[in-house]
Amino acid sequence: MSMTLSARDGLFSGMFARGGAAPEVSDAAWLAAMLDVEAALATAQAGIGLIPDEAVEALGAACRPELFDLAELGGRAAPAGNPVIPLVAALRERVKPELRRYVHYGATSQDINDTAAMLVACRALAPLLADLSACADACARLAAGHRDTVMAGRTVLQQAVPITFGLKAAGWLSALDRSRAELAELPLPVQYGGAAGTLSALGGRGHEVLPRLAAGLGLAEPVLPWHTDRAPVARLACALGTAAGTLGKIATDVKLLAQTEVGEAAEPSAPGRGGSSAMPHKRNPVGAVSVLACVQRVPGLVASVLAGMVQEHERAAGPWQAEWETLGELLRLTGSAASWLGEVLEGLTVDPARMRANLGAARGLPMAEHVVARLGGTPEARGLVDAACARAAAEGLSLREALLAGPGLALTAQELEAALDPAGYLGSAGVFVDRVVAAHFDPPE
Amino acid sequence: MSMTLSARDGLFSGMFARGGAAPEVSDAAWLAAMLDVEAALATAQAGIGLIPDEAVEALGAACRPELFDLAELGGRAAPAGNPVIPLVAALRERVKPELRRYVHYGATSQDINDTAAMLVACRALAPLLADLSACADACARLAAGHRDTVMAGRTVLQQAVPITFGLKAAGWLSALDRSRAELAELPLPVQYGGAAGTLSALGGRGHEVLPRLAAGLGLAEPVLPWHTDRAPVARLACALGTAAGTLGKIATDVKLLAQTEVGEAAEPSAPGRGGSSAMPHKRNPVGAVSVLACVQRVPGLVASVLAGMVQEHERAAGPWQAEWETLGELLRLTGSAASWLGEVLEGLTVDPARMRANLGAARGLPMAEHVVARLGGTPEARGLVDAACARAAAEGLSLREALLAGPGLALTAQELEAALDPAGYLGSAGVFVDRVVAAHFDPPE
Amino acid sequence: MSMTLSARDGLFSGMFARGGAAPEVSDAAWLAAMLDVEAALATAQAGIGLIPDEAVEALGAACRPELFDLAELGGRAAPAGNPVIPLVAALRERVKPELRRYVHYGATSQDINDTAAMLVACRALAPLLADLSACADACARLAAGHRDTVMAGRTVLQQAVPITFGLKAAGWLSALDRSRAELAELPLPVQYGGAAGTLSALGGRGHEVLPRLAAGLGLAEPVLPWHTDRAPVARLACALGTAAGTLGKIATDVKLLAQTEVGEAAEPSAPGRGGSSAMPHKRNPVGAVSVLACVQRVPGLVASVLAGMVQEHERAAGPWQAEWETLGELLRLTGSAASWLGEVLEGLTVDPARMRANLGAARGLPMAEHVVARLGGTPEARGLVDAACARAAAEGLSLREALLAGPGLALTAQELEAALDPAGYLGSAGVFVDRVVAAHFDPPE
Amino acid sequence: MSMTLSARDGLFSGMFARGGAAPEVSDAAWLAAMLDVEAALATAQAGIGLIPDEAVEALGAACRPELFDLAELGGRAAPAGNPVIPLVAALRERVKPELRRYVHYGATSQDINDTAAMLVACRALAPLLADLSACADACARLAAGHRDTVMAGRTVLQQAVPITFGLKAAGWLSALDRSRAELAELPLPVQYGGAAGTLSALGGRGHEVLPRLAAGLGLAEPVLPWHTDRAPVARLACALGTAAGTLGKIATDVKLLAQTEVGEAAEPSAPGRGGSSAMPHKRNPVGAVSVLACVQRVPGLVASVLAGMVQEHERAAGPWQAEWETLGELLRLTGSAASWLGEVLEGLTVDPARMRANLGAARGLPMAEHVVARLGGTPEARGLVDAACARAAAEGLSLREALLAGPGLALTAQELEAALDPAGYLGSAGVFVDRVVAAHFDPPE
Repeated sequence: MSMTLSARDGLFSGMFARGGAAPEVSDAAWLAAMLDVEAALATAQAGIGLIPDEAVEALGAACRPELFDLAELGGRAAPAGNPVIPLVAALRERVKPELRRYVHYGATSQDINDTAAMLVACRALAPLLADLSACADACARLAAGHRDTVMAGRTVLQQAVPITFGLKAAGWLSALDRSRAELAELPLPVQYGGAAGTLSALGGRGHEVLPRLAAGLGLAEPVLPWHTDRAPVARLACALGTAAGTLGKIATDVKLLAQTEVGEAAEPSAPGRGGSSAMPHKRNPVGAVSVLACVQRVPGLVASVLAGMVQEHERAAGPWQAEWETLGELLRLTGSAASWLGEVLEGLTVDPARMRANLGAARGLPMAEHVVARLGGTPEARGLVDAACARAAAEGLSLREALLAGPGLALTAQELEAALDPAGYLGSAGVFVDRVVAAHFDPPE
Repeated sequence: MSMTLSARDGLFSGMFARGGAAPEVSDAAWLAAMLDVEAALATAQAGIGLIPDEAVEALGAACRPELFDLAELGGRAAPAGNPVIPLVAALRERVKPELRRYVHYGATSQDINDTAAMLVACRALAPLLADLSACADACARLAAGHRDTVMAGRTVLQQAVPITFGLKAAGWLSALDRSRAELAELPLPVQYGGAAGTLSALGGRGHEVLPRLAAGLGLAEPVLPWHTDRAPVARLACALGTAAGTLGKIATDVKLLAQTEVGEAAEPSAPGRGGSSAMPHKRNPVGAVSVLACVQRVPGLVASVLAGMVQEHERAAGPWQAEWETLGELLRLTGSAASWLGEVLEGLTVDPARMRANLGAARGLPMAEHVVARLGGTPEARGLVDAACARAAAEGLSLREALLAGPGLALTAQELEAALDPAGYLGSAGVFVDRVVAAHFDPPE
Repeated sequence: MSMTLSARDGLFSGMFARGGAAPEVSDAAWLAAMLDVEAALATAQAGIGLIPDEAVEALGAACRPELFDLAELGGRAAPAGNPVIPLVAALRERVKPELRRYVHYGATSQDINDTAAMLVACRALAPLLADLSACADACARLAAGHRDTVMAGRTVLQQAVPITFGLKAAGWLSALDRSRAELAELPLPVQYGGAAGTLSALGGRGHEVLPRLAAGLGLAEPVLPWHTDRAPVARLACALGTAAGTLGKIATDVKLLAQTEVGEAAEPSAPGRGGSSAMPHKRNPVGAVSVLACVQRVPGLVASVLAGMVQEHERAAGPWQAEWETLGELLRLTGSAASWLGEVLEGLTVDPARMRANLGAARGLPMAEHVVARLGGTPEARGLVDAACARAAAEGLSLREALLAGPGLALTAQELEAALDPAGYLGSAGVFVDRVVAAHFDPPE
Repeated sequence: MSMTLSARDGLFSGMFARGGAAPEVSDAAWLAAMLDVEAALATAQAGIGLIPDEAVEALGAACRPELFDLAELGGRAAPAGNPVIPLVAALRERVKPELRRYVHYGATSQDINDTAAMLVACRALAPLLADLSACADACARLAAGHRDTVMAGRTVLQQAVPITFGLKAAGWLSALDRSRAELAELPLPVQYGGAAGTLSALGGRGHEVLPRLAAGLGLAEPVLPWHTDRAPVARLACALGTAAGTLGKIATDVKLLAQTEVGEAAEPSAPGRGGSSAMPHKRNPVGAVSVLACVQRVPGLVASVLAGMVQEHERAAGPWQAEWETLGELLRLTGSAASWLGEVLEGLTVDPARMRANLGAARGLPMAEHVVARLGGTPEARGLVDAACARAAAEGLSLREALLAGPGLALTAQELEAALDPAGYLGSAGVFVDRVVAAHFDPPE
């Protein structure tokens, strides 16, 4: 068994190859996919009588990954320019001579490589989508469970006005559900065009193979070969990039909430998790860090795929080949991030008391907007509250103290209390939580 | 009138700001969009009785771009951190005191900025989509008109097997039609969440404003505020990136076909177009070059947007602000590329004779695959043709000569003729052209 | 006066075009640079007798920016493919007929455009380098002034062990000084090769013009024309990218220190600075945010330049043209970030008391590593302190309390005190500060 | 033996992991480097008496890669957040109890990881620099050997004026020599700062370890720890990015020269090299394609590193970790591209006859600029030649024919001959070739 680029047991793979997507983009998975494509192509062709059934059987027997040596194929791929050329040669050797012409019939290397790439993507997306669902489920539980847990809303890293933790989790949930849906709905087309996209080796019947090939592999049928129209790959890369960005946003919130000075959320703890080689007291948010480390690497890879769309003529000289490992990296890294985040969210410890305390430590200032509103929302009201805020800042007072120390306040004591109560200033937060959670469990068709 | 970042009349803007998208992303367009949002917000709020109709009228009168000075707003935006803060202040000054509290009611700066961004995008997409349609229409004409124009298919920049120019144009068309559809279908949501996404300033009724605001502006309604869920912006950036890649692919083909040594296609000529400051004879493919210059700049911008998705808490400290100009650049550059390509494709000169001649200059070698097939497609046939190709290369023979000079060929003279005829080896090219052209003029719903 | 892409008074330019670099990359600055290059070229040529002195004088009189209309040049640049072609035409019209052949003598458009780009960069770097120096000076003052101000060192956003604010500022300073030096030392070469790099129009004497042209413009002399060797531009882009990353790192620290819950540093305050359109109490760190917004956009632009190095033959069809505005953006954004950060650092408020308090709020846990060391650094000592940390976390005790509540501690009360004193656990912090500050004021040659 | 991310024998590694850099960035190489760092750290510390010599010996015996299992370390690295934590634990187990405290003394995980990264880079750069030298040597031979081989200079993919192939190769050479020098001169510093950069665990003597550690490993000494100043990594990434761009430019030229319709250069041929699975006649430029496929992936990776410079406080939560594999990829891909290009350039077949023929096929038009010059370079001369060019294009004439068919030409037959002779219009090409070749063999100090 030879080494693979997506090894799960490398020095850094615990961080970057976690979850089910990584093995599906390994070299072994690519080989299996290529063989599946060659076999499915024969089946589709036999289905319309282009090649004999006997060839299908022979290929079926030959298209078994354990019969091939990855390292040897890789070695012979270099001078050929892609791994399909030596693979086809090796396949033909495993079929009796009179059937060899039906191996890889009418196909070009890129047909196999591209269709295998879509198959690899399809198979890697399955666990990735499951991990995104797990993340979303955890967010739905957090959103519902903390629908009314008051905490500081923070804008530009400053306490702004109160929100609920449920609303924060609902925002995560909404983003996750849409990113997941986008990935799930992507068409992943088969590729089959022959040397230059005409399927000339099949006379005029090549296009009849396309729907059968697509059905056989569970992929989409393209309207024509897309050898140098790389939009299907670009769209996949972009959807992964958007999903990764969503995962990174959530991990950022967790990382910030877990700061020593904030302490409103903590990752699940376990022996050896998040420790330090030097400092006994450290409990690092290693899950969020791993998500962010994966996500950090994604935008550059998406840019590579987009830049590589500019391909020459009927088949390209460089940018196409550059897609192979890049696509695997995108699936592996996004998959690893989703797997890590699932663990973080499922075990997230939320500290409502600390949330309240931190909000309280801001001395009521995040309620300033509310006080303005209760005072009528006029520029005069704003001016009065601005002055109280300035005084509070200068003298270390609470907003209440500063307001009471200022000019006559047109609020009764009870009204002032209400104006300063975070739980009374949550607007539509509950409605937003409810509808996002409902849509998660019962998505619109 | 002050200067704008999207100026159409700058030194380089002929290349990078052509077409209708550029003026729609100018500072003046942003200002107009921001004012439209403030006015529409008031209308939506009055519609459910949150603010008086009088405020709507007052705002309607005040929200006119000509009343504001871009440079002054820009100057005051710097310390504020965004241009909405001074704009709201200036708007309030234009409304009588007792109505001022209804200006920007319950909104935060980002609500206005984000919704304006979506409006700017929507308005810039209109001419961009029209230019993509024009490109596609031109491709459809080229595909239909050259359905049977034989030329060399080229893979890895080498002549491979014959194709038709119609098939090449159909590939362009298919990619354009899908990129256009993807952009046209993107949901562009309004933003309205107040300080931290709760719409707290509107009591519990803020969410009722959302559908009305969306309807008023012709934008989509989000399920909840998306202040730090930047997927809507990322998806727009990605769809522009994919469209740009498609434009770049086509321009690459034009550029390569226009090479002195190929000469199969030429850009429209006009006095002063594509000349050189030094060389009298130059006819540079300035349109394709301009497309490629625009497209080259897009992937890095998409990466910036994706990287910027990792935003903090309820509103971000840096990555959000980084979107503003970047989004405008993406629209401007993709729009300029689409406009340039439209001109190129509409005036493209195609030279079928040169196509035939270039194919002929390859001495029949691109027909080698066909000969193998006609000989039965067996490994022996491949071996025989391989030997003929090697001989042809070594001795400068045509494939025909090399085949006839080799061991006994199991083909009659007529069969050999047929095997070497490019027009007889086009496979499904015609079918592909027909269905892509048909789908363009009568798209599936 | 026409609009420019680098307008300083646009809606968003307060944030993205602050400082002295932005005007130096405006269209007006490009035009001035192009004219300077044409004039200097004539001077260099006359210096070796290739053209008459009379031509130099005529060109000197004609090469004045106010004689040209940017918008008109821009409009005529589009079909030409670059702005130099119409500029040369306009220049020739301003020179008497018999001297016209000496205008732009032996040059190609790219010679002028590239040399002008280097001149623009040189002129934009001057204020940028000054702003980096201002940032560094401010850091040197902070480092020296807070050499012994104890605060929490934070790793993975958790309090780790004590550091000094002086050490943090010294780290900023060291990075700034090196980024500045790297930019200051970059060779910016003139370009002069004629149509295809042979300087053929000058017979065999063209290369003699190069050193004179370089000297005349204060730029470097290349060993041969670099029309499609874009490394000089790539190195400039990379050095700007590295400098921007350095600025972003510092702004991140400021942003995090300014969090409501941390509060150890604050940006300078001023009326209207960092306020909110909704919340009276907000004091947003608008400077750090602006730095980060600029910096966020830089890596994608650097990637564009690097991707654009892959240029065809003697002069390229697309990637070269893509550099023009991108280079301007890189200078503008890095310059704006440097200008913003200078303001932030020069006015930074540091709160040593809050630093101490935050460290204290961690209940002595950041001293755990020190206690292990004082106990002999053995695995047993680590085990004992690990247990105390766990107990402290579980029961809300301080490290001191937890240690005393555990099994017999081999430290006297005084030794324990010393082990728990942050100021006694600063290692080489002071040495590092001293040598970085010394190197700043007296840099090694 | 476990799998590694940089496997040389994977399915795609022939293309992307060619040459000597790939094995130096494998997981095994990382492990070896980490162990070398731990051992060198002990040696440096013992050198100033901080730890006993006995500990150095014990560590020396333990720091042997074959004693460790990569997969097991990788598995334990995931919850720890980096592979150094389990490695240190495993190392300590291999040392007798009383010496364990001296293992990883005063260090934090990042000290080891960062220094190992620099060591990995240093070791991967050695073969990469050798491959760049081999490329440069091949270019020097081509430049010298074809100093006077006339060919078409091509700008915007159109024939422009004559150049020599020697000049083209000299341009490649100059770029290679500078990219190589830039990489060779990069300072690669050791990292050693302890938990938060103070080296507190070593009392006040930690900084004395730095020069000894640097000397022991052959790396540079930093002025202070650079845990969150990632400029050293960014500069390395950027220099690799620039070198990759240079390699890509050369491969682009080869690819374009090898086009069927141009045929001026060909890659070395060998059995199985550059063939097609479908087309017997194909001789694909697989080397240039491989270079371009590698290079295509580099700019996005550089952008990732630059974006990751924005790191938090004393040690970062995500962007630092994202560097590890990215840096390896940059070294691997640039190394593979350099190795491929060396093979291409060393075996490049140049066809001077075809170069002449292609230039001739342009019917003398590339000499138009020369004719203008010989006619006095006046606007009138330009007008006359412009007209001849237009006539030549319209009527398919040669420039000579068109000139003679036009109004009276102020040139004798001999003068016209000279004006139309490409070899007489090469300007300083020879001088440029000579000085670049000379500088390669005898570089300025």
